[in-house]
Amino acid sequence: MEGKSPKASLTIMNELVLPNDTNTFNNLMGGRLLHWMDIAAAISAQKHCNRVVVTASVDNVSFHHPIKLGDVITIEARVTRAFNTSVEVRMDVYAENVPSGMKIKSNDAFYTFVALDENNKTIPVPPLLPETEDEIELYEGALRRRQLRLVLGGRMKADDATELKALFFAEK
Amino acid sequence: MEGKSPKASLTIMNELVLPNDTNTFNNLMGGRLLHWMDIAAAISAQKHCNRVVVTASVDNVSFHHPIKLGDVITIEARVTRAFNTSVEVRMDVYAENVPSGMKIKSNDAFYTFVALDENNKTIPVPPLLPETEDEIELYEGALRRRQLRLVLGGRMKADDATELKALFFAEK
Amino acid sequence: MEGKSPKASLTIMNELVLPNDTNTFNNLMGGRLLHWMDIAAAISAQKHCNRVVVTASVDNVSFHHPIKLGDVITIEARVTRAFNTSVEVRMDVYAENVPSGMKIKSNDAFYTFVALDENNKTIPVPPLLPETEDEIELYEGALRRRQLRLVLGGRMKADDATELKALFFAEK
Amino acid sequence: MEGKSPKASLTIMNELVLPNDTNTFNNLMGGRLLHWMDIAAAISAQKHCNRVVVTASVDNVSFHHPIKLGDVITIEARVTRAFNTSVEVRMDVYAENVPSGMKIKSNDAFYTFVALDENNKTIPVPPLLPETEDEIELYEGALRRRQLRLVLGGRMKADDATELKALFFAEK
Amino acid sequence: MEGKSPKASLTIMNELVLPNDTNTFNNLMGGRLLHWMDIAAAISAQKHCNRVVVTASVDNVSFHHPIKLGDVITIEARVTRAFNTSVEVRMDVYAENVPSGMKIKSNDAFYTFVALDENNKTIPVPPLLPETEDEIELYEGALRRRQLRLVLGGRMKADDATELKALFFAEK
Amino acid sequence: MEGKSPKASLTIMNELVLPNDTNTFNNLMGGRLLHWMDIAAAISAQKHCNRVVVTASVDNVSFHHPIKLGDVITIEARVTRAFNTSVEVRMDVYAENVPSGMKIKSNDAFYTFVALDENNKTIPVPPLLPETEDEIELYEGALRRRQLRLVLGGRMKADDATELKALFFAEK
Repeated sequence: MEGKSPKASLTIMNELVLPNDTNTFNNLMGGRLLHWMDIAAAISAQKHCNRVVVTASVDNVSFHHPIKLGDVITIEARVTRAFNTSVEVRMDVYAENVPSGMKIKSNDAFYTFVALDENNKTIPVPPLLPETEDEIELYEGALRRRQLRLVLGGRMKADDATELKALFFAEK
Repeated sequence: MEGKSPKASLTIMNELVLPNDTNTFNNLMGGRLLHWMDIAAAISAQKHCNRVVVTASVDNVSFHHPIKLGDVITIEARVTRAFNTSVEVRMDVYAENVPSGMKIKSNDAFYTFVALDENNKTIPVPPLLPETEDEIELYEGALRRRQLRLVLGGRMKADDATELKALFFAEK
Repeated sequence: MEGKSPKASLTIMNELVLPNDTNTFNNLMGGRLLHWMDIAAAISAQKHCNRVVVTASVDNVSFHHPIKLGDVITIEARVTRAFNTSVEVRMDVYAENVPSGMKIKSNDAFYTFVALDENNKTIPVPPLLPETEDEIELYEGALRRRQLRLVLGGRMKADDATELKALFFAEK
Repeated sequence: MEGKSPKASLTIMNELVLPNDTNTFNNLMGGRLLHWMDIAAAISAQKHCNRVVVTASVDNVSFHHPIKLGDVITIEARVTRAFNTSVEVRMDVYAENVPSGMKIKSNDAFYTFVALDENNKTIPVPPLLPETEDEIELYEGALRRRQLRLVLGGRMKADDATELKALFFAEK
Repeated sequence: MEGKSPKASLTIMNELVLPNDTNTFNNLMGGRLLHWMDIAAAISAQKHCNRVVVTASVDNVSFHHPIKLGDVITIEARVTRAFNTSVEVRMDVYAENVPSGMKIKSNDAFYTFVALDENNKTIPVPPLLPETEDEIELYEGALRRRQLRLVLGGRMKADDATELKALFFAEK
Repeated sequence: MEGKSPKASLTIMNELVLPNDTNTFNNLMGGRLLHWMDIAAAISAQKHCNRVVVTASVDNVSFHHPIKLGDVITIEARVTRAFNTSVEVRMDVYAENVPSGMKIKSNDAFYTFVALDENNKTIPVPPLLPETEDEIELYEGALRRRQLRLVLGGRMKADDATELKALFFAEK
């Protein structure tokens, strides 16, 4: 299977924060954002895999800034690494207040997806070929994030997570 | 402020998986479940705090089993620990296929919420008083999970996360 | 077919009142609540029958208190009696204002459901075995409510509704 | 306050049954129909009252025929009687299968609404002036249906419901 | 195939403007209205064709008046002309402010639809038989509007659009 | 007021076609697409104006290809010309079938928007400064399209629409 560039899976999604997306303080609810992020990331994963994909995991996501009713959300998603039958997708999320033109970075996150064939079985996906320095850094970090998922999910012993230690010491 | 029992914040939510919640394979999309979980957890946090709350973070969530169209989702949420102005909520999520009566544990997760006063400012919340053995274990683990959030969010050095090491070695 | 306890069908649903659920006075619209109640009651009926069910009727429902934007709705549904191919489900509905912690009983209602097999035909359902005094009272009242439905639906003459007279004289 | 004809409040609503409105057998869910009926009836009540209205009660509704995905629902709503601060609205609901042109009467129902002023207080509404024979029959029956609501709601003794007896003996 | 009267396809739709249909100024968003109009017009086209239909085109639509949260939208749709496998539907759209009883004409529009058989192929539709003077005028204007669509879509040369010139000179 | 480049308003929106967006043949309904296009175009117009905007008109839109359930819609919107208090936005819409990787141009369209100040009054917007050949061609064509809107809306006589004739003879 031929490898693909991260550019091939770049997916941009803009959404307007509507009343039903907000709480009684007119702040966007976190779960609604997680939902949009899942759709954006799934589209990105499907572009890479040319397969229907299902969400396998969501990494730790933090929400630092309140996002308001009427703001424009921009989600930029791209595949950072392909494993055997799954891909990791990174998202950068921005919120823009239109009248003021103020745009802040709201948060970033990693979701993983598994590719399925017509019979609902997992199926191998094309490798990712990182090109830029950023893409290579994300590609290499994917291994550490994967070990963290496995340790947190109880499917790998912390002792065996050799890459993971690097996560805690090397990554900002 | 008087402490409260985890029972006071127990919130149960049942949802039916409808067509728009699923992908073309009739599997529940992960983002939709994360959205429901956010609402259930926010209700639970509000019951504890008697305040409007906003989502501060979502810990790593894994999806191991496909959930199908027509299944009944049950989310059980309860506060596991209160910090100064925030609470951690744990959810256990189940999926039931009604005709067969088969009910599986779909996943579990921790969300954190910050309490706000009328002016949209953070405000102290009541302490949580764990009672059963399970409640105490979740209460104690909350410290380690918090350190992990801080390290992953770049707001604590791994070296200072003394409790975190226990997470990787002691917790299943 | 083996009988089942009312406890087996207990279904609790919590919902947050969002902007689109309200009118221009920020009051929950009755129809939205009837919709949620239908989903909660259908889940309860399905748990009892282990079958797909369809709504057969809704008894008189009154709305006494305005429910506000941001309130938490709690619906508790359970099967009160099984007839040949149908079940009666009772719901108790509560509305809670989170900041004040005020929780009121909003209303109660009875919905009935018919169970269907794979060919979309009605099919017998398990009997209900009431245990507590309350459960027995609801079980016995179900006969009177059923006669009222039949009379109102023009499918039974008032003269033949022997149980119904008791409804008007004995029940509060 | 000047009286108004039932024609002034006639409200017709057509809706298409979409996937999310149906269960796994592609049948319209009863609660979704009750929700649409509430909106149609509220519009009708508002046309009569020229006020914001809130749902006060829903009378017994039966569902006799499965309605399928893709069918067109037609709801015809009109005010049948005005009381002091409330109105009764009758709806006739039809379902049409477009390819075959088959249109069936699905059900009928009575909802009541209370009118509110700007301060959220109940306020008198214009009387209804029935004209045709049908309109007069519905107008007169409204008194009996009202007594039934009061008796079922525990707010009137059956003994005092003099009109109600007529309901069970005179009305089909 | 027997012809049908415009009355046979008359479709009336009433909708309430809810929070999620509006922007931050509480004005109905144009796209939401276009969506409702598409459903109303599709129902009308299906009534004429007794077939599933798909939208083929939307003519120029203007929005002259802001429509507010809580207003009642009334859409009246009817088929104006049938071509070989398609129909043109005209809609008149009104917005009513309930407390004041003020009802304005919001806009009018023409949508066209193509009829499909069970295999998703286009299929001939019954002719439309206009009766009143208005119906005949709309019927005749349909030819000009069709030429405008073809010219704008690059599928007819302006020189060949003999009817179209009349549009610009005769029609108001 | 300083002019802005078309690049400043480029807005990309990706959406997944879900069950509720489709008819019974699993084809995307035109009205749903018009709704998404309105949101994408409004975001683009707001980026240019730094103001809340409302839809003023939609030009003729044609739908040539059925779009299927599960397809990914990509809408690219950008401002093509600013008039005194309004802007014209062009959209190019694509539909991609993910498993096959087939991506087709679905359609293109022009929507116009009016900018509003805090008091809901129209307010001047920055001029658009086209740069590339394509941008200049779209900028110039905007005048002709505007005349067509005015003629179709009955607010300009065809005789006075000098630019419009060019539309029918020069533009494909």
